[in-house]
Amino acid sequence: MSSVTCQISISLDGFVAGPRQSADDPIGVGGMRLHDWVFATDSWRAQHGQEGGEHNADAQVVEDMMSGVGAHIMGRKMFGGGGGPWDESWRGWWGEDPPFRTPVLVLTHHPRAPLVMEGGTTFTFVTDGFGAALEQARAAAGDAQVAIAGGASTVRQALAAGALDELHLHIVPIILGQGERIFDDVGDPVLEPVEVVASPAVTHVRYRVVR
Amino acid sequence: MSSVTCQISISLDGFVAGPRQSADDPIGVGGMRLHDWVFATDSWRAQHGQEGGEHNADAQVVEDMMSGVGAHIMGRKMFGGGGGPWDESWRGWWGEDPPFRTPVLVLTHHPRAPLVMEGGTTFTFVTDGFGAALEQARAAAGDAQVAIAGGASTVRQALAAGALDELHLHIVPIILGQGERIFDDVGDPVLEPVEVVASPAVTHVRYRVVR
Repeated sequence: MSSVTCQISISLDGFVAGPRQSADDPIGVGGMRLHDWVFATDSWRAQHGQEGGEHNADAQVVEDMMSGVGAHIMGRKMFGGGGGPWDESWRGWWGEDPPFRTPVLVLTHHPRAPLVMEGGTTFTFVTDGFGAALEQARAAAGDAQVAIAGGASTVRQALAAGALDELHLHIVPIILGQGERIFDDVGDPVLEPVEVVASPAVTHVRYRVVR
Repeated sequence: MSSVTCQISISLDGFVAGPRQSADDPIGVGGMRLHDWVFATDSWRAQHGQEGGEHNADAQVVEDMMSGVGAHIMGRKMFGGGGGPWDESWRGWWGEDPPFRTPVLVLTHHPRAPLVMEGGTTFTFVTDGFGAALEQARAAAGDAQVAIAGGASTVRQALAAGALDELHLHIVPIILGQGERIFDDVGDPVLEPVEVVASPAVTHVRYRVVR
């Protein structure tokens, strides 16, 4: 069966997004600072059709985390477009060729027909909860990994459901002060650090969730 | 001038102590789990007059962090004995030969005469705030380091005052859910990871505070 992983950037004070998320600040005020290290890598830039960037330890981490994923699960807030019934003109933040290139199950309370994008990404909207999305993601992924893409609420649901096999934290040395946390109300999972990659920008720790 | 350092164990959800600290649970409910990795090392055990323990990467970290310290600063809660005016029979958690072996400046609102302990530890009670304690600690430490021993409130004061030169986090893969945090209301210091030591139990990241 496919393993379920999540990789996410987190501030030293435990936030994966800043406060007051909006169309102007999709990751909340200051939240984009969590991802500066990603944008600086050549591997991320290549995946997003951009040139340049650094080929460093962080770039290798990005490359590794993009490979082997057969399906993604994300929350409605990460997909974007505001709350309530869908404005069907909203097709995600990523343009017509999103970087996922797999089936993406989007958790929502509002039904919507699937969106087939370019490059292998399809967005399927799941209204019957995390468990149902996980089942569909596993079926789509086959032997490949199911990646929990975010945001905070979806990661919390995966942790609380005991669904995660691996959590890969990119610990960014900034303090956001406010925002969204991933470890609130997730119980007491047993985690074991299995790999650490250090760079001047961020500390990457891969944890196995012990069952 | 002496540099000011702090090393502290922190849970994945950002707590350095559990909730409901008391004489029975000095580090709060569940908080002792933050320190299991320390108690398992031969270097900690030797310093506390105990035999055995592991000689591993964690033990080396403990050895390094104990050397080169010329004075400690701690909060009243860490020194213990309850709130309000002093019960003078309380001489700290550590017995007559505490492991600090330097002058220790204890932040308190209630005056008390200094306590000269065995092995080089003296507790001096400072009632005029963190800045005054820092000044006394620097004078006592000379060229050696001033170590902020804890707890959470004292670390927050050091961070907020811009007094820290180095913060050494021992990131323990547990989730406490509640307790005391060190990064609330400390502003937005710039931190740079300068050394990472990984073990199966804990990830040690040494941050330089950039000025």
